[in-house]
Amino acid sequence: MESPSIPRLAQTPEPPYYAVIFTSLRKPEDAGYADMASRMLELAVTQPGFLGVDFARDSNTGVSITVSYWKDEASIAGWRTHAEHRTAQAKGRAQWYSAFELRVAKVERTSSKTRD
Amino acid sequence: MESPSIPRLAQTPEPPYYAVIFTSLRKPEDAGYADMASRMLELAVTQPGFLGVDFARDSNTGVSITVSYWKDEASIAGWRTHAEHRTAQAKGRAQWYSAFELRVAKVERTSSKTRD
Repeated sequence: MESPSIPRLAQTPEPPYYAVIFTSLRKPEDAGYADMASRMLELAVTQPGFLGVDFARDSNTGVSITVSYWKDEASIAGWRTHAEHRTAQAKGRAQWYSAFELRVAKVERTSSKTRD
Repeated sequence: MESPSIPRLAQTPEPPYYAVIFTSLRKPEDAGYADMASRMLELAVTQPGFLGVDFARDSNTGVSITVSYWKDEASIAGWRTHAEHRTAQAKGRAQWYSAFELRVAKVERTSSKTRD
């Protein structure tokens, strides 16, 4: 499968918009996880209101952080209840993640440094 | 220096509270960065209103994500204007980071799976 083209740091419009902050620890046995994660990314970028995503997995600590950005609460709800995503969520909770925290937050202000 | 003890995933109180989402790419030359980052973590955890922090640096992509959690806007402002932190911010902008995005967001709701 060809990966969607994602800029190295997500570029988002002026706030307000929403961020879904998902921090997780995966179990050592995570068969099927990588394919599902690729498929979910492929799907997410096509959802109405999707603005971008940042991801990092730290191989020293096992901590993964995914922050996805959304236009509004309705677009988050649409993605949360997407049938294929619901299947993935259930497998994640039961099988792949030993722990996670999901936080939905309204982005109020930003600052940045563009690449030099 | 002994690192402060940080749980693997930050445990935060019931919302509302604030998240500062800092995504960054560092330059290949980052002399002094690691010491400064350790010092800033040591300082941050002592700040009024500090609730926790999650961090991941992905060695495959170079993307780092730090999400710190704060009681309110006042505690974020206190940390942002802390003298030693201001010095670190200036060095980061001028010297260590090729790009970053900082987003201040109000956490409205959460869900989680605790470790099993």
